[in-house]
Amino acid sequence: MINNIESTVVSTRVRLARNLAGYPFPNRLESEAQAREIVRMVQGAASRLRSFNLYYMNEISEEVAQAICDDHLISTDLVASSFGAALIDEEEAEEPHGKFSIMVNEEDHLREQYILRGLNLPLAYKKISAVDDELSRSLPFAFDGQLGYLTACPTNLGTGLRASVMLFLPGLTRTDKIEPLVAAVAEKGHTVRGVYGEGSAAEGYMYQVSNEVTIGYSEEQILEDVQGAVLEIVRLESQARKALRAGDTIGLKDECCRAVGILSHCERISYAEFLQLASSVKLGAALGFLDISEFSWLDDFISSMRPANLSLFTDVELTPAERDVYRARECRNTFAGVRRSEESGKKRSKI
Amino acid sequence: MINNIESTVVSTRVRLARNLAGYPFPNRLESEAQAREIVRMVQGAASRLRSFNLYYMNEISEEVAQAICDDHLISTDLVASSFGAALIDEEEAEEPHGKFSIMVNEEDHLREQYILRGLNLPLAYKKISAVDDELSRSLPFAFDGQLGYLTACPTNLGTGLRASVMLFLPGLTRTDKIEPLVAAVAEKGHTVRGVYGEGSAAEGYMYQVSNEVTIGYSEEQILEDVQGAVLEIVRLESQARKALRAGDTIGLKDECCRAVGILSHCERISYAEFLQLASSVKLGAALGFLDISEFSWLDDFISSMRPANLSLFTDVELTPAERDVYRARECRNTFAGVRRSEESGKKRSKI
Repeated sequence: MINNIESTVVSTRVRLARNLAGYPFPNRLESEAQAREIVRMVQGAASRLRSFNLYYMNEISEEVAQAICDDHLISTDLVASSFGAALIDEEEAEEPHGKFSIMVNEEDHLREQYILRGLNLPLAYKKISAVDDELSRSLPFAFDGQLGYLTACPTNLGTGLRASVMLFLPGLTRTDKIEPLVAAVAEKGHTVRGVYGEGSAAEGYMYQVSNEVTIGYSEEQILEDVQGAVLEIVRLESQARKALRAGDTIGLKDECCRAVGILSHCERISYAEFLQLASSVKLGAALGFLDISEFSWLDDFISSMRPANLSLFTDVELTPAERDVYRARECRNTFAGVRRSEESGKKRSKI
Repeated sequence: MINNIESTVVSTRVRLARNLAGYPFPNRLESEAQAREIVRMVQGAASRLRSFNLYYMNEISEEVAQAICDDHLISTDLVASSFGAALIDEEEAEEPHGKFSIMVNEEDHLREQYILRGLNLPLAYKKISAVDDELSRSLPFAFDGQLGYLTACPTNLGTGLRASVMLFLPGLTRTDKIEPLVAAVAEKGHTVRGVYGEGSAAEGYMYQVSNEVTIGYSEEQILEDVQGAVLEIVRLESQARKALRAGDTIGLKDECCRAVGILSHCERISYAEFLQLASSVKLGAALGFLDISEFSWLDDFISSMRPANLSLFTDVELTPAERDVYRARECRNTFAGVRRSEESGKKRSKI
């Protein structure tokens, strides 16, 4: 069985909001030319560090934008924006499971972010901080001795730091513990929200916890607080899973194992149904019903099956119906090897 | 792929209605003693042929009665009856796939029947007729020179013969052709009806065709007519399956393959859901989507999974919930080996 942290924490993300002194905030920029001037400045500074790709949002296809957005490399705001908004993206990730990127001209001139698999806030911060230090040598960041880094929205003032951890919380969801969790976390200045909507089963039981406050605390304190909140949620999720295992396990096991059966046999499947079933498979693994020793390939596979990503992987343009057929074939190959756990097969029975 | 007759005809049944001269019809019997006297007479005559088991309906458990009824060895009327009603059942079937039995004191004093797998009306009639000849040597059958064999209900007068063939008609069901079929068959003096209820998908797409008229035709003519009706229905079913294959096969294949996925992975399953999914598996085999070369093991398995039969196979009494778990385990073992057809896997695709 996977350990609690590995089976609960999906990824860690740290982002810094920065703006260039002497320029209006993005929503006040005077012209496309001025916006592009900022992009060129950022690109120039970044290229001195390593190789980057530059994508202007109004020059890439909607599907590519959606795929990048789904991967949390850019925000939906940046996808919607078209006024000189751009993504600067590492050509080759330095770390095998980490990725660095800069959104330019979203809400702030720069949103530098580092995202990595699993839980490691200090590493993500160290990575982004090093880049930020380098960029600050050539870019005139707007900084106030009292307020810290200046940002378009006051909620980002000070450190400009947002530390987010993506969590897989089927236990808390299925035992109706998400609402009290959100309230408890809010009291400590953090937020928990569904990553894709409400965090329901249909959304893959995925939630994001992040700091709400960016000013008045050091970066280290913020990271430590978020880390503390995450570890507490992991503990609660583990308790909730235990409670699930102590309840009607036949019903749960049935749901998880049938999900494997459908995924390994379907001839067509929508992304929505796929996500729901794949989440049941993850739940089955987390509860020890299914013999899956790590989640990363499953998370990668789920990500690759999104409509936008799926279009990028295929050579020809697919209709939605063809995508569902293609997805089903990938699912059959991927889930054919997933087995029920020996342990759960050996349960004593009078039958 | 299975041939049309094998993949459509499940079983053949021929029964003869007979009554003993000098006794009131069963619904007019004067006493339990009189009823038992008839049973003893029939049993005595039958034992001279070979070994039989005798079950008085009011002495066996409801579940055993239901199991025998589900196997079409006795009618629901006999199960409901308790006034000296009995089943006389071959101890060991003479033919590997045929079975002889006599219901005593159902609607008539004797309902002799022979049931065999597949389509073979002449053989079923030959078998039952030989038994009937033997029985008639020691039993005084009520017979009128003009009317033929006398029966409690005039619809059985004459030959007392009912020839029934059980058919698996998913094609005609799924293309909405059952209603016109019932009308066309009725015009020729036959009936088609759902074996378990309405013959819907939920009922396994099972129908029974049989002769309506028993008087005015010879036994041979009746058998020939029913045989003709069956072959015509098999032809229409084959056409309907072709039409299904020419339509949205992805959707159909998806349904059939998912059924295999669920049956091979479930942890609990009700009989109703099981029957529906197993019928989809048969449909998938009939349409060539699944690699199943014969239906007999599947029909046997479906029969063995009925609640009443399932109780008979297990040593201990099972609750309904335990039955669903037991059934799921049997399903996993049975359907794990069912594969998609190579042919359907090789279809050309631009993806």
